[in-house]
Amino acid sequence: MKISISFDFFGSSEIQKTVDFSDYCVIVIDVLRASATICTLLDLCDKIYITGSIEKAGDIENSIKIGERNAKKIEGFDFGNSPVELTVNKNLIKEHFENGGNIVLTTTNGTRVLENIVSDHILIGSITNAKSVAKKAYKLAKENNKGIMLVPVHRKGNFAIEDFIGAGIIADYIFKEYDEKIPDEKFEELIPARMLTKSDWVRKIFESNSGKNLKELGYFEDLIFCTSKNTQKSVGIFDKKSGSISSF
Amino acid sequence: MKISISFDFFGSSEIQKTVDFSDYCVIVIDVLRASATICTLLDLCDKIYITGSIEKAGDIENSIKIGERNAKKIEGFDFGNSPVELTVNKNLIKEHFENGGNIVLTTTNGTRVLENIVSDHILIGSITNAKSVAKKAYKLAKENNKGIMLVPVHRKGNFAIEDFIGAGIIADYIFKEYDEKIPDEKFEELIPARMLTKSDWVRKIFESNSGKNLKELGYFEDLIFCTSKNTQKSVGIFDKKSGSISSF
Repeated sequence: MKISISFDFFGSSEIQKTVDFSDYCVIVIDVLRASATICTLLDLCDKIYITGSIEKAGDIENSIKIGERNAKKIEGFDFGNSPVELTVNKNLIKEHFENGGNIVLTTTNGTRVLENIVSDHILIGSITNAKSVAKKAYKLAKENNKGIMLVPVHRKGNFAIEDFIGAGIIADYIFKEYDEKIPDEKFEELIPARMLTKSDWVRKIFESNSGKNLKELGYFEDLIFCTSKNTQKSVGIFDKKSGSISSF
Repeated sequence: MKISISFDFFGSSEIQKTVDFSDYCVIVIDVLRASATICTLLDLCDKIYITGSIEKAGDIENSIKIGERNAKKIEGFDFGNSPVELTVNKNLIKEHFENGGNIVLTTTNGTRVLENIVSDHILIGSITNAKSVAKKAYKLAKENNKGIMLVPVHRKGNFAIEDFIGAGIIADYIFKEYDEKIPDEKFEELIPARMLTKSDWVRKIFESNSGKNLKELGYFEDLIFCTSKNTQKSVGIFDKKSGSISSF
């Protein structure tokens, strides 16, 4: 099975391009914070809408609106893209969903990548659900005779070390759990990300540009939440047609 | 000064795309073996022609022809893309050049990247000339008010860890020599490559796909040559118009 990492969403070239990963089961990784937010929501409800547009989020009726722009909560929205804030309000969210209400999340980077990937199988990966997503992606890829493509989201035009580290952590689980004997050099492109997981990677994320920004905005608890390995078991799968993510 | 690394020449998307690095002084890095071959030749002569086409190489009159396809010497050519082979034959090459003859090198990956970059300043970087190329690139970038872009060449469609490590080594020299106080996180995209330079990177290159291929083809000495840090001082600069590389 081919296991690889995509560098397509950081680079000098067009950011909005479509990338064909139809031969792969894809794991999209947006460590700070969309991936962990999605896992948190999927612990409370089976389906959430996701969109890059504030306007479109507004169009979804009877919904709890969650989202951020530049890491800050959007005016008029119910919650920010903060897994800690959502955890604190979990009863309210759960109740709303169980009573037939909708949940909608809007973020920029993660949504941009989700919408630009062509694949039948797009899963949401984070450090918090690393083991679960690795397990499910491997099974899915095997059943469908596909490879696995790890896709760090990055920020528009900027490399995000936290997403690269997240990809390394998930890759480690894919390797460790399923085939001890895969030689490293067979997957040369995974070496840099996997090497980072052997370093003081939590510090690197705390000191990253995204990390420092979150601290400055008062989201230090989210940083701790999003860098806690395997605290979540939910895995989300993206459905492009409906623009939603469901539990998988 | 912006210092960055390009992931543009490894990826799922079009390999033949043009990348605009006109805001940067570019260092193109093809560790095994074109960069070291070029440094070796520039120790013997001031100018060499470079082309991706065997036919075009044949068109250059009165020339010593050097080149490879799939790491093997091209039939009918004088030498392979082997710095060790060229070093052994250095007197012959020097004499030919001093008597008005030409030198032409044809390789696939390195030439492909050189031809697809838009920049006024394209330097050739290797592990063997890491310190020199870092020094010259920094001076050039400063004088022209540009950034520095490190460009690992990779193989067509395949990631090459040796070029990524080469970029990290050169980045370390840029940082170390010129500004000790640059915080790591300011250049987040350089962290993975720079981290690799703190590992057993020589072993990683020897065990890479390219490294193993060279060993199998009997080029073990080239592997040692190309991974020897700062054994060469030559720095080449590419001139797209004439398709040649000159000493800089």
